[in-house]
Amino acid sequence: MQNFTFCNPTKLIFGRGMIASLADEIPQGSRVLVTFGGGSVRRNGVYDQVSAALTGIDHVEFWGIESNPKVETLRRAVELGKRKKVNFILAVGGGSVLDGSKLIACALFDRETRDPWEIVRTRRPRGAIPYASVMTLPATGSEMNAYSVVSSLELEEKLSFTLPDFPRFSILDPDCCRSLPPAQVAASLADITAHVLEQYMTSPGQSRPMDRWAEGLLLTVIDIAPMLVEGRADDAALADYMLTATLALNNMIAMGVSEDWATHSIGHELTAFTGMAHGATLAIFYPALLRVMIDEKEAKLVQFGERVFGITEGTTRERALAAVGRLEDFFASLGLPTRLAEAGIGEEVDRRIAERFRERGWKLGENRTILPDDVARILAAARPAKH
Amino acid sequence: MQNFTFCNPTKLIFGRGMIASLADEIPQGSRVLVTFGGGSVRRNGVYDQVSAALTGIDHVEFWGIESNPKVETLRRAVELGKRKKVNFILAVGGGSVLDGSKLIACALFDRETRDPWEIVRTRRPRGAIPYASVMTLPATGSEMNAYSVVSSLELEEKLSFTLPDFPRFSILDPDCCRSLPPAQVAASLADITAHVLEQYMTSPGQSRPMDRWAEGLLLTVIDIAPMLVEGRADDAALADYMLTATLALNNMIAMGVSEDWATHSIGHELTAFTGMAHGATLAIFYPALLRVMIDEKEAKLVQFGERVFGITEGTTRERALAAVGRLEDFFASLGLPTRLAEAGIGEEVDRRIAERFRERGWKLGENRTILPDDVARILAAARPAKH
Repeated sequence: MQNFTFCNPTKLIFGRGMIASLADEIPQGSRVLVTFGGGSVRRNGVYDQVSAALTGIDHVEFWGIESNPKVETLRRAVELGKRKKVNFILAVGGGSVLDGSKLIACALFDRETRDPWEIVRTRRPRGAIPYASVMTLPATGSEMNAYSVVSSLELEEKLSFTLPDFPRFSILDPDCCRSLPPAQVAASLADITAHVLEQYMTSPGQSRPMDRWAEGLLLTVIDIAPMLVEGRADDAALADYMLTATLALNNMIAMGVSEDWATHSIGHELTAFTGMAHGATLAIFYPALLRVMIDEKEAKLVQFGERVFGITEGTTRERALAAVGRLEDFFASLGLPTRLAEAGIGEEVDRRIAERFRERGWKLGENRTILPDDVARILAAARPAKH
Repeated sequence: MQNFTFCNPTKLIFGRGMIASLADEIPQGSRVLVTFGGGSVRRNGVYDQVSAALTGIDHVEFWGIESNPKVETLRRAVELGKRKKVNFILAVGGGSVLDGSKLIACALFDRETRDPWEIVRTRRPRGAIPYASVMTLPATGSEMNAYSVVSSLELEEKLSFTLPDFPRFSILDPDCCRSLPPAQVAASLADITAHVLEQYMTSPGQSRPMDRWAEGLLLTVIDIAPMLVEGRADDAALADYMLTATLALNNMIAMGVSEDWATHSIGHELTAFTGMAHGATLAIFYPALLRVMIDEKEAKLVQFGERVFGITEGTTRERALAAVGRLEDFFASLGLPTRLAEAGIGEEVDRRIAERFRERGWKLGENRTILPDDVARILAAARPAKH
């Protein structure tokens, strides 16, 4: 185990009907910027619950933070926040609304006039005004971490950065998951799975409790996915779904272990160029990455195959490849394409992504051994249709 | 899953050599009361490391907080703290030193003169001055929770209470585990196991991720126990040991699930009357409680038996009882007595414990169904020698 520091002070408020507790959590005297995405919270009753809870609290609404939140939209929210002198941000929606709101919180903290994209590009927020969330979509874990991913339409870029502060609180009501569109459920399950894998599919033998915890989350996702995809999840499965998403990316499974995140880096480029849902990009690149990097990943893949899928037959290499196959089948079972050709992505996109990694010269992965040429190989492995 | 609120703001600082970071964590201008147990920290080098880190920080030492910390000792520490006007407490030692220091922190917060035992007896601390720890013994999880257990010699009582505040930080260096006496290692492994079980061995089907997480901690403890008991643990196993103790009782495995704690309640009485090490009392009462309460515990025992011990043969009842047998064997493998007779406890102690539960009329367990007569039955089941 490596030395580490862990601190996650976010207050997690979880369960049916818990949105009503909102008023108790916002500090007295706050001027709140309440941020929303499109209109889904109007249809599922969340907006009404939030509005009722905010009665008597000074607040202003900002609507329209889109999937893969765009700095072009967020600039307008920052202007509104400055004009209204807000000192607290409440994001109501999915991970995109919260990720965008995190950038707003950083931009409002800045006294000087720095364009919000500078914060993203330099990955150096100086601070953030207090912010919190009512999370309506289990996927990004943004509700209990200090990460944000923001895109620029103009630059066709999608970059992540880390804030110095966590959400003050996040309210999660699993009833919000009842009305999610099937495509969002599928992409979110791939996202949750990939979050766990990025912190788990690394060198073996680093930490027994972290390995077990990661495997437990993977077993949970695989257990509940069919019910969720087929729209027959009961209350218990919806709650497990929502909590597992949070636990998959709140640093709890990363104590003292190395992390990878190469698949996310490559996936972000596919979203930047094509707008594909984040989770869907991971279902395409994870199996391909594991096959290309099989020498490095083999030992952990064998452990994963045995503990998660019960694979115990064959040589080490055969077992490792069988585990990748089962993972790809799992993504496919969600109804997601697992190859670029299946997703209708043209080959010119592969070339543009490969070119971008060559230009940047980024070294990716746990050991910084995934070089631009490896990214090109991963793109090639992810191309041909399979199913 | 039940509705829940989770917030654990303790900063966990983990790894070899991390005690040196102490100076950065104590707020400027603090007057620190540094609390210790006996002299083991002088022998294992921790005292020297702490002293070096505290150079230039205003502090006063208090020595002599014993196992199962006694209010009679803690009163003297409170007087010292008042006299020196301390505003921060740093506990250096095991869970007993920290548990005792938590009561000191509550007593120093009180402006009025309230005897510290009143805080324990009423279980109503009004607050606590800031406190932190350098934890040297993996067992209680006190380093990342807000619980404390304090005894009164005079009253032969041992009671737990909950603070409004968590430790500000806790520093854990697994090297501290290298020189632990075998009896302490054994008791601590039983304590860790019991902490997980109290939050897991309840009604099934409450939360898939919490079940998996608890099972992962149990699998870890069972995996590393032989190495620890035989004194051949490597760096990785020592780190896993120390981190697992923290994770077993920091509320992370209790999100949205019911808890039991009946075994702890009964064990505390055995310690109150005989001074037996806390962990050792749990190795005696857990198997007995599960056998007496088998109707309630059967379903979860079957799951536990299958996922932790691989028990898949027999009727439900046979599998459940086999799981209890494996758990008792595990405690015995640590070198601990698992029966009162084996521990040399006289039958008059059984009578006094049973009498105390009758007097108090406490209803214990997940469903408050463990009545004083059941406690008497658990004592009877725990009596005859087995091994």
